[in-house]
Amino acid sequence: MRRALDLARGVLHTTAPNPRVGCVIVRDGQVLGEGATQPPGGPHAEICALRDAAARGVSVAGATFYVTLEPCSHFGRTPPCVDAVVAAAPGRVVVAMGDPNPQVNGAGLARLRAQGIPIATGVCMQEALALNAGFAARMSRGTPWTWVKMAASLDGRSALHNGMSQWITGGEARADGHAWRARADVVLTGMGTVQKDDPRLTVRDVEVPRQPRKAVVDGRLQISEGARLFDGEEVWVFTAHDDPVKAERLARRNARVIVLPSAEPGRVDLPAMMRWMARQHVNEVHVEAGAGLTGALLSSDCVDEILAYIAPVLLGDAAGMVKLPMLSHLDNARRFDFIDVRPVGGDVRLRGRFADRWQALQSAATPR
Amino acid sequence: MRRALDLARGVLHTTAPNPRVGCVIVRDGQVLGEGATQPPGGPHAEICALRDAAARGVSVAGATFYVTLEPCSHFGRTPPCVDAVVAAAPGRVVVAMGDPNPQVNGAGLARLRAQGIPIATGVCMQEALALNAGFAARMSRGTPWTWVKMAASLDGRSALHNGMSQWITGGEARADGHAWRARADVVLTGMGTVQKDDPRLTVRDVEVPRQPRKAVVDGRLQISEGARLFDGEEVWVFTAHDDPVKAERLARRNARVIVLPSAEPGRVDLPAMMRWMARQHVNEVHVEAGAGLTGALLSSDCVDEILAYIAPVLLGDAAGMVKLPMLSHLDNARRFDFIDVRPVGGDVRLRGRFADRWQALQSAATPR
Repeated sequence: MRRALDLARGVLHTTAPNPRVGCVIVRDGQVLGEGATQPPGGPHAEICALRDAAARGVSVAGATFYVTLEPCSHFGRTPPCVDAVVAAAPGRVVVAMGDPNPQVNGAGLARLRAQGIPIATGVCMQEALALNAGFAARMSRGTPWTWVKMAASLDGRSALHNGMSQWITGGEARADGHAWRARADVVLTGMGTVQKDDPRLTVRDVEVPRQPRKAVVDGRLQISEGARLFDGEEVWVFTAHDDPVKAERLARRNARVIVLPSAEPGRVDLPAMMRWMARQHVNEVHVEAGAGLTGALLSSDCVDEILAYIAPVLLGDAAGMVKLPMLSHLDNARRFDFIDVRPVGGDVRLRGRFADRWQALQSAATPR
Repeated sequence: MRRALDLARGVLHTTAPNPRVGCVIVRDGQVLGEGATQPPGGPHAEICALRDAAARGVSVAGATFYVTLEPCSHFGRTPPCVDAVVAAAPGRVVVAMGDPNPQVNGAGLARLRAQGIPIATGVCMQEALALNAGFAARMSRGTPWTWVKMAASLDGRSALHNGMSQWITGGEARADGHAWRARADVVLTGMGTVQKDDPRLTVRDVEVPRQPRKAVVDGRLQISEGARLFDGEEVWVFTAHDDPVKAERLARRNARVIVLPSAEPGRVDLPAMMRWMARQHVNEVHVEAGAGLTGALLSSDCVDEILAYIAPVLLGDAAGMVKLPMLSHLDNARRFDFIDVRPVGGDVRLRGRFADRWQALQSAATPR
């Protein structure tokens, strides 16, 4: 299963909106075939592994199939994998996580059981789910899996009062941040960051087969057509302000304006934005914004994970990382879990995850 | 040497103001004797190891002596260890760090060399120095090794605006903080913390043979005689305000008032305070104060290490960790190195150290 997970990690950037899946077929400790899901329209992991075995000229009948996700049971762009698996007459099928796709959701495993094929489930489920949290979130709750990237000093300052923020953290942390951008379907920022930094929002420090889509939250639709993030593929501009003339101007810069007003004037309905993105098959959203949008996403419960890079410096009186409503009691603060803590270059990377959101995902992905 | 370092760690709380030293005598992979420095006036590590070997009835002639600190060559409370080592006719002496005590500073090693005893030096020097950074700092630069303990949210907030700060971090982080209090000679706080929290400043979450001394910085000598930190042993009160009447009242609460005015009215001369403490044989100072004193110590270059506990929570608009002068450029921020990053309970502990200060210590402790 570890090998199957490695294969799935190898296709991190190419399967979206499909899940990243790996499959290894083994007999007597010998790998007979292996594969990972190909880009949309291409074969899934199980089919790749079967073809690999066929290319090696070996029979897989009676062998053990390790697959990181329950084989699909429905016709999508490709025929159901579970039929091909059944036809191969495996001796046993070991599955890491169930497929939370309502069109599968246990039907793949049920099909194997009905054929009398012994199955084992839940092996390395946490790792498999971490690879496909976005797919599982979109399928089970209708919103993407979303993390907010932040960089700050040890005392939580992300910029000086004069706005200077480049570069609090070092080159390795930036490259690591770009790797997280790279795996996401959407890189989202706010209007404040566009005005201050005019970011390109592209992945530059790691090599990728495709750039993630860029998106910006701009409640009052004030973004300039000259902003650098419009260079390249279509950009989504989420706004609360319906201004067809401006939208038309932005369209000429390859921007698509999505109007999602909230009860508060000038404020985008952020949960609606997340649902909208999920309907566009977005699995994962990487947020790289200022304290305002980051705080608003947290406050409206749109954040699953925190990706923080902390620099070995204290800045004292300077701009904070996140704007949140003032608390009167510490018990009211929403705590997360640290799930990974490690040095990255001279900085430290802290990953946090909200436990309730992960638990819901685990329930949805538990093999049935 | 690893065993010798473990022995030295075993006497973390009992050797002050002497260094923590371990010694292991080995022949053919067999330990013949071992020991660690006893409380002041008692024998040093080498003597303990020799006595241990004698008690086992074995001869140590020709054996290898591993000792974490250069054997002393001067008469202090005890006769010079190097004489006893020479008398034991070792085959080889392996030393981790040199003794930065100006009365030794290479003389111990020179004595061994003069006797034709082969020596190896610098083995595990970093670890040995970390155990005795305070001793080395006091000997080489005349001030104690000082760390500031802080606890905050991921966004660097140490308290809500209404003052609520208990408990941002969890029980394990508090216990770990008490272990750092325990190893220090002095636990130092500021008047703001006394007014806000009325702390006892004692070590409670770990068992210790002795409590560290308590000290408070109180520029205007406003501390109340009723403050809880006066319960117990003598407390040092550093002030800029010479008020013999108040000092007399505090003396009845077992407080010793030390007047160290600076150019700024009402402000203690913090570097002078550090030098004063070193003259009182203080090796290590643990600072547990608010943003004001912590920032003032940092600004006056009195801090060697940062000991930060970060809780998995974002607080937004709340009190910062440290008060520092506003910066106009990030290049002017004084950076440290992260030297240890690890989870402690549900929190994360980040240790930072200023590289220039550690380098100076290393130079002083390099065996000559």
